[in-house]
Formats: sequence, structure tokens, C-alpha cells
Amino acid sequence: MTPSLTAAQLAERHRDTLDTALETLRSRAYWSPHPEHPKAYGEEHGSLDAAQGLEAFTRLRDARFELGQPGTDGWTGGEVSPYGFELGITYPHADPDVLLPAMRDAVPAWRSAGPERRALVCLEILARIGAATHAFAHAVMHTSGQAFMMALQAGGPHAQDRGLEAVAYAYAEQTRTPGRAHWSKPQGKRDPLELDKEFVAVPRGISLLIGCNTFPTWNGFPGLFASLATGNPVLVKPHPRAVLPLAMTVRTAREVLAEAGFDPNLVALAAERDGEGIAKDLALRPEIRIIDYTGSTGFGDWLEANALQAQVYTEKAGVNTIVIDSTDDYRGMLGNLAFSLSLYSGQMCTTPQNLLIPRGGIDTDDGHKSYDEVVSDLAAAVDKLLGDDARAVGLLGAIVNPQVGERIDAASSMGEVALASRRVPHPEFPDATVRTPVIVKLDAARAEDATAYRSECFGPVSFAVAVDSTADAIALLRTTVREQGAMTVGGYTTSAEVETELADACLDECAQLSLNLTGGVFVNQTAAFSDFHGSGGNPAANAALTDGAFVANRFRTVEIRRPA
Amino acid sequence: MTPSLTAAQLAERHRDTLDTALETLRSRAYWSPHPEHPKAYGEEHGSLDAAQGLEAFTRLRDARFELGQPGTDGWTGGEVSPYGFELGITYPHADPDVLLPAMRDAVPAWRSAGPERRALVCLEILARIGAATHAFAHAVMHTSGQAFMMALQAGGPHAQDRGLEAVAYAYAEQTRTPGRAHWSKPQGKRDPLELDKEFVAVPRGISLLIGCNTFPTWNGFPGLFASLATGNPVLVKPHPRAVLPLAMTVRTAREVLAEAGFDPNLVALAAERDGEGIAKDLALRPEIRIIDYTGSTGFGDWLEANALQAQVYTEKAGVNTIVIDSTDDYRGMLGNLAFSLSLYSGQMCTTPQNLLIPRGGIDTDDGHKSYDEVVSDLAAAVDKLLGDDARAVGLLGAIVNPQVGERIDAASSMGEVALASRRVPHPEFPDATVRTPVIVKLDAARAEDATAYRSECFGPVSFAVAVDSTADAIALLRTTVREQGAMTVGGYTTSAEVETELADACLDECAQLSLNLTGGVFVNQTAAFSDFHGSGGNPAANAALTDGAFVANRFRTVEIRRPA
Repeated sequence: MTPSLTAAQLAERHRDTLDTALETLRSRAYWSPHPEHPKAYGEEHGSLDAAQGLEAFTRLRDARFELGQPGTDGWTGGEVSPYGFELGITYPHADPDVLLPAMRDAVPAWRSAGPERRALVCLEILARIGAATHAFAHAVMHTSGQAFMMALQAGGPHAQDRGLEAVAYAYAEQTRTPGRAHWSKPQGKRDPLELDKEFVAVPRGISLLIGCNTFPTWNGFPGLFASLATGNPVLVKPHPRAVLPLAMTVRTAREVLAEAGFDPNLVALAAERDGEGIAKDLALRPEIRIIDYTGSTGFGDWLEANALQAQVYTEKAGVNTIVIDSTDDYRGMLGNLAFSLSLYSGQMCTTPQNLLIPRGGIDTDDGHKSYDEVVSDLAAAVDKLLGDDARAVGLLGAIVNPQVGERIDAASSMGEVALASRRVPHPEFPDATVRTPVIVKLDAARAEDATAYRSECFGPVSFAVAVDSTADAIALLRTTVREQGAMTVGGYTTSAEVETELADACLDECAQLSLNLTGGVFVNQTAAFSDFHGSGGNPAANAALTDGAFVANRFRTVEIRRPA
Repeated sequence: MTPSLTAAQLAERHRDTLDTALETLRSRAYWSPHPEHPKAYGEEHGSLDAAQGLEAFTRLRDARFELGQPGTDGWTGGEVSPYGFELGITYPHADPDVLLPAMRDAVPAWRSAGPERRALVCLEILARIGAATHAFAHAVMHTSGQAFMMALQAGGPHAQDRGLEAVAYAYAEQTRTPGRAHWSKPQGKRDPLELDKEFVAVPRGISLLIGCNTFPTWNGFPGLFASLATGNPVLVKPHPRAVLPLAMTVRTAREVLAEAGFDPNLVALAAERDGEGIAKDLALRPEIRIIDYTGSTGFGDWLEANALQAQVYTEKAGVNTIVIDSTDDYRGMLGNLAFSLSLYSGQMCTTPQNLLIPRGGIDTDDGHKSYDEVVSDLAAAVDKLLGDDARAVGLLGAIVNPQVGERIDAASSMGEVALASRRVPHPEFPDATVRTPVIVKLDAARAEDATAYRSECFGPVSFAVAVDSTADAIALLRTTVREQGAMTVGGYTTSAEVETELADACLDECAQLSLNLTGGVFVNQTAAFSDFHGSGGNPAANAALTDGAFVANRFRTVEIRRPA
């Protein structure tokens, strides 16, 4: 059967994009082929516009999500939007004893396709996902609780960027070794020894993606595409509260694979029944040779210690710190921090938690500010940013689960509340839980405060921790990163010396550092092709998105050599 | 203090070599800067000649091997040459509570040096080792039991090649991301967002090299240099019976590091007292973040399951198979196999063990040969190859430890002996134990034979296993690789179809395949810059020497970003 999507068509559509991605990974300059603006989508661009996206999402509701997978032994699903309604979608429940062998059977043809063809098929999958960005936006919004604009951008183009980045790295890694080589070793006066060598990238086995609730696509695409592009089938086990965005991804992948002449079972969904906990069983199966996981430290550590048959890539919890030493743009700093604390109600693994401020205050372009002033000015900045309910709702989104709400409530008993969290009514979704951030004052000199700032409090809770000095702040930063891990570190200083000390601390403890952000770039955001997300070198994550280490061990190179 | 070895000097000496190595890794053509011929060394080449090498080795005997390491709490050593004499050398015994912190203190300056400087320092270390190749040859010979010529080549230039290869990969991996980048993201009519970004390769921590008895330098250099070149200090824990070659390596590294202005404690030795078993303790210390290991499957599996704080790279045991289907060069095949079985008395992780031969015989250019004929012709070929004692000794070397001898003796009870092992007197070292290979006939149809051919029998023991057909041979090959692992697979066939089936089996099971070797290339030998040693994808090893995966996770990239 001739595939409807030929290799030549794929190359024509995507080879330039792949080349530009490869080039950008080397330059680390700004680039993205995926537009951020909602109005950049529509029929004239070959994609769904806003109305079509909403309609596509609505059509998926209250129905079975068919995938045509082998081994489907029932239907399951119970997603409830953080905006207050049931999605009503059920997904195929899989019998792994049927599904996994079917996935394995798909390997040889996919392996034979080679790195370029696989990359181009992956780019076609991403292009189809990109064309449905407006539909994905609603799916991400109503599973993660992100506000619409963020769901569209972070769940759409930014996630697609991260997927493309992984494909490009995978392609580059597999093509470092040529497909064929001739080897001729001189033997003095005798004839040289001559061999013809063939090098084939072979996949490890089935890759398991364990999705998360807050960023199902953004955190899911890198592992999914890195594994698929290196030849591995991918079984997608979404978070039970955020199935839809990954189910849509799986459906798109299956469609494209079939059209390109490959077995659609190279990508499959493993939705689970309530409380079933299938991740643990799947993770230990011998067929599973790669695992990508985003979620709690507890389960991430369990995977690393128990799924020894697999390469395990984890992003777990961390405690992100901002060291505030001094600034020449006090307003800019406050505004930037207020935004970082508020975006998606602080439900990002990259949101700052501990703000370390010298108790003697800091020097600024607006004069010396005491610790109390800095904290109250920051509280005021957050208040101002979120003063208008409509704007606040667009920035905060909804609280993803009741545990986050409980943490906000518990925070007020941890210390003096500098900024209380308030509930914001949602104009469109009255049942949504929308909460503003809480800021609590703590003191590094009080031993009892350490429990709070020495553990992750996921959600819109931050601690303004008074420290004796900037040096003490940096010392605390070091131990926090070493013991709790950190996805991000921020620093504000006008002193070259302090800057060096901060940088040294981050180099020693392996954490990503953003200095003096006062404008439209925020510590909790990273850009694909340029920034690394996490370092992979502290307890918050054992891998970074995306670098060579993230892709290099997803395949092995088999050599076949013969006398020439 | 100005280093006596400046960056400019290092660049002038070694930058071209590094560039050629990088280029060769991409082309996989033949290249080596390290000469194989013993006469290529001498004063006119800036290296020790044969006499000087022997003299250098002799001077080291019956003495303390001083390294000037901190935390030395005693002296230990008890190496006995497989050629029958005590080396009489004692090495510093280290207190890890003193030594490890000193090694960690060396990190910041080495990290700051950057990838190029580190690579060039590593190349200088390799060049000094190369100049002492004749001394290393004796050290390797009298710890591993390799014959002199093999000790010189495999322990010298080939090991240096593998070290250089690791340095080149490490350099390439660290420089995939630029040191600095400017990032400018358009914002429509507003000013673009602009950031300056700095990317620094930071080491994981202290790297532990657990050396092996048979190839202390060849198997040790890749991990040692990959870790050092990526910024990690390296603690070398040699096999207690093969300390000297790695102690010489450590001494050379410490000298070069000091001359280049770095802390010599970046490389240190951890020799152990008899029966002390320090590898287990060191492997679990939190300071140890990388482990390179070559040795038994038992300890390798233990490391993988327990040293979870570290990246663990293992080369363990495997069962190497040759599938004999047919050949158009019967003599060539027999000669090639006879050599492979005899070289270093089969004490290579790459030596073939199971020879699978259809019980109905095979087609050859010399007519059809029955199973019995193939086996007896192979036995005759080995006999002929080793008929002359002087030549035999130069090929076989000495038996590395009594367990290998016991295995040879036990083999005769496993089945019909097609070729008995004989003891060969060594003209120069009367106390050396030199043994020729034993070949035992087994039958895949006899269930009781499986125990023998389904486990590794390290040493000069091979099994000629009768199988029903080539298809059965390939099926057995598959299960053997899947369950026992394999460093090498060989095949002889004139059929394109069988060739494809063999290749498919090796691609599915992730094993390195050599087809129809009948000349001067042997299945148990791989060439750096071109061949991969092991695949890292079957139970014999979790890493290959050397590929991107071997270096990519030895460092992480830390980013520091600031508004431009």
C-alpha cells in the first residue's frame, strides 16, 4: 500500500524547519515556527481559528474518545475542569498484555525508516497539533486550570517548540555517526585492512510517558518526541485529571503515522480507571525501557530506584529561590516578581517560592528599602497587578486541585501574612476556584520557620525570608538547591561581586540562574531552542529540557561490519 | 604562579590532534595518532625505547609508588605477575574523608578552564602516557598476563586512542551549546525582549573508575578521560591485581595537571588492602556522582541497583556467539576464528564463546563440511596456529588468575572435547601459566548442554554447539543476547538472506555484528574512532565505548541569563 504521505512530501514540508531548528540549537538565538498570537491561526493559515477550536473542543465533550487501539478492554474517564464542569469524555482502557506486544511489532519498520524520515514524520505530527492549537488551548485550559491565553501559548506553540527541539536533538544525535563508512588501515608493505561498516540507530524499546496535571503537553512533548524520533514506540499514560490534551496528541500521532505508512501503534494511550495507579505497574514491565515523568518527588524517586530496566527521566519538585540584594530598577523588579508569583497562580514548577531579603534592607534606585518595605511594596505590586478581576482571572487561571487550595489556607498559619490570598470570581465560569497569591514573612534566624521554606509548597504561596546578609542568602540558596533542588534561581543585585557569588553558587549547585529580570522576561519562563528547563544536576530533576543527555541514551548504535 | 605549561603551548601541541579526532568520529574512517609498532618509539620520537621502557618498569619494582596525595594513611600492594613473580610495589592507601574533599576543592578552577583547555590538558596527559608506552607495556603485561606485543598495543596506543576518543566526544558534547548567546524576541511594535545568556558546562561531582584486571588501561581510559574532560575529578580504584598501569596513569595525570596550573588532586588513586573491598563503600558515597566499571555481572548489577546517586556506566559479562552458516573462504574462516579464540587465551570480553554450527554441516568453497569436520578443522587450525611454543606464548600470554585455569579444567567434563588445552612452557618466565584453548562439542538438542552455553565461561573455553539449522542458530543467538548479553556477534554466510536475518537479529537485540571475517580483522578487536565497543543495549554492558551517551550525562549545562 502506498502511503498517502510520502517521504518527499514530508521533506518538502518540514526539512527546512528541521534545519533551522538544528541551527538555532547551536546559536541559541530566538526562533520559533509556532505563532503565539491567537489571531495567527485560522483557515488562511491552514489551522483552526478561535471559534473552530472551541467547537472542536465542544464536540469532544460527553463522548467516547475513539483511538482504534488494540487491547481496549473498557472505557474510562472522569476529568472535571478546574473551571467547574465535567468534561464527560471516556477514553479506551488498555490491556497491556495485548497493547504492548502490538507496539513492539511496530518497531522494525520504524527503525528501518531512519533518523530523517522519523524526524519528518514527527514534524508532521507537530504541524497537525499546531493547526489545532485553538482546540488544544481549551483542552489544556480545562484540565490544567490555566487561563485561556496561557493554555493557548504554553500548551500550544511553546509545547510544540519543545517537541520540535527534542526531535531536532534526536536527529542530530542519531546522525553524528554516518550510516555507512569505509575503513582502511595501512599495513606497511602489505595490503591495508579494509572494512565496510554500517551504523544503525536502534531504539531501546517501549517508552512510557507519565503525564502531569499542570502542563500535559509542555512537559509531555519533549519525552514523547525524543523517544519517537529515536525509534521507540511511546505509551502515553496521562494524569487522570489531564487526559484530553495527550489523548488528542496520541490521536494526531496515530493518524499521521498511518498516513505515512507506519503502524499507528507506535503511539498509544493508557488511560486509567479511578485510583487504578497503573503507572507503577507499567513502569516495571520489562517491555518499558524508557520513562519520562513529571510530578511529585516521591514517585519520581521511586521510579529512579525501581524501574531499573528503563532509562528514567524525571522532573520532580524543587524549592525555587530569589536572592534580593539590590536593584537599580525597584519598580521593574517588583512588577516582574509580582507577575512571576501570580502567573497560573504559582502552579508552575518554575515559580519562585523563597524570596531571600537582607533584614537590614536593600539599596535601590528609589533609595534604601527596609525588609518590611520590600515585602509590603511587593505585596502592593501583586495587589495592583491583580486589582482588576477580569485581568486577574486572565493571569491566574484556576486552582488545579483542592490540595493547592488547602496549602494557600495553611500558609497563613506559617508566619505573618504580608499579602493575603483572595478569591476572585470568574465572569464566565462561576464554579472556578481562582485564588490570588499569599506572601508570608519568615525569618531565617527562627529555627521553626525552616520547615516552611525548606520544603516545596506548590501553588501561589511564597515566603519572604529575612536573612542576615546577602552572603547568608547565598549560603541558604546553596543548601536549598543541594537538598531540595530548584528548577529556577533568580537574583537581583547591582554589585558585580554579588553577581559572581550568585553565579558561583548556581554553578556549584547546578541551578539555572536569571539575573535582574525587570521587564517582560520572567524567571519562570524558558524559551525552547535557547533556554534549558531545569539543569538535571540538582534534586529537582535528573534531566534538562532539552540537551544531548536527554536524547543520547534513547537509542543505541548497532554496527555491522564486513570485509570490503 | 605561572603554569609551566601554558594554554598556548597546549593548543599548539594538541589542537590539530583534537580536530582530527573530531573529524574522524564523524567519518568513522581509519585514523590513529598513536603508533602500534614497538620500533616507532625512542628518543628521536620523544619517547622511551624498548630498553628504556623495561628499565622504567624495573625501577618501579620493589618500591613505594609515591603520588603525594592528601589523606594517605598507609601503603598497600601485592601484585603478582601472571608470569610468576611479585612486583613488590606498594601504593598509597587513601582515607576518603580527607581525599574526597581535597578532590572536590579542585573543581571550580577546572570548571572555569572550559572545555577546550580541559581537552588539551587531557591530550597532554595522553601524550605523556604515549611517550611511556614501552613502560606501560611491561606494566600491563605483568598485571594482565597479556603477551608483550599485545600489552604494548592494546595497553598502549589502542588504549590511548580510546582515551582520546572520549576526550573528543566530551569536547564535542560540551561545545554543542555556545558559551554565550544573544536572544532577541520580537514583540510586534514594542521593543524586542533581549537577553544575554551564558552557558557553562558544570561537572556532576567526583567520578569513580573501578578498573579491571585484564585491560586496566584500555577499559579504564575512556571513563577516566570522559569524566576529566567534562570537569569531574576522577578517583581511580584499580583492580588489586592490576594497580600499576593505572597508578602510572594517575601519576602522569597529576604531573601534567600541576604543570598546567591545576590542582593535581583532580586525579587520585584509591588502592586497597587485600580483601578490603573499598569499591562498594566508595560507590555509595554521596560525593561520587559518576562510576565507570568493568567486571563481573554481579557487581555491575549491584552498582546499577544501588549507586543511585551516581551515573553508572558498566561493562559486564556476556556470551559471544558466532553463527556459522556457510563460507566462500573456509581456510580464511578457520584461521580467523583460531586466532580469535587464541588471542590472550580468550580472556577478552569480546572473545567468541559459542560457535553455532548446523548439525547437517555447511557449504564452503572447499565443498560441504559436516559439523564434525568443521569442528575438527577448527581444532586443527588452532593447533597449527599454536604449534610453535614461542609463537604460541606470544599470542596466548599468561592465564590471568587461577579461576580461569579451573574453568579450562572443568570444561572437559561438559561434553566431548574437540580440542584439549595444553600447557605451554614460557621460554623467559618458567613460572607463567600459559594454556591453549579448549573446544568442547555441545548439542542444542540436549537440554543438559544448555547450562554450559547459556552462561559466560570466561577464558579460553569455547563451545561448538550443533544446531538443527541456521534459523535455529539465529533463534538461539537472539535469546542468548537477550538473556546473557553479548559484546560481539560474528557470522559466516554466503547467503544474502541469512545475512539479513543475522543483521535483523542483531538490530533487534542490540548487538555488534561482524560478518565473514577471514583476514586480519578479528571479531574481538575494535578500532577507536570507528568501531563501537559493545552496544550498551543488551545485558553485557549499559554503555558503549564511545558514543554521545557515554559523555553527555557526565556534566550538566548551567545557564546564566541577564537583560541585554
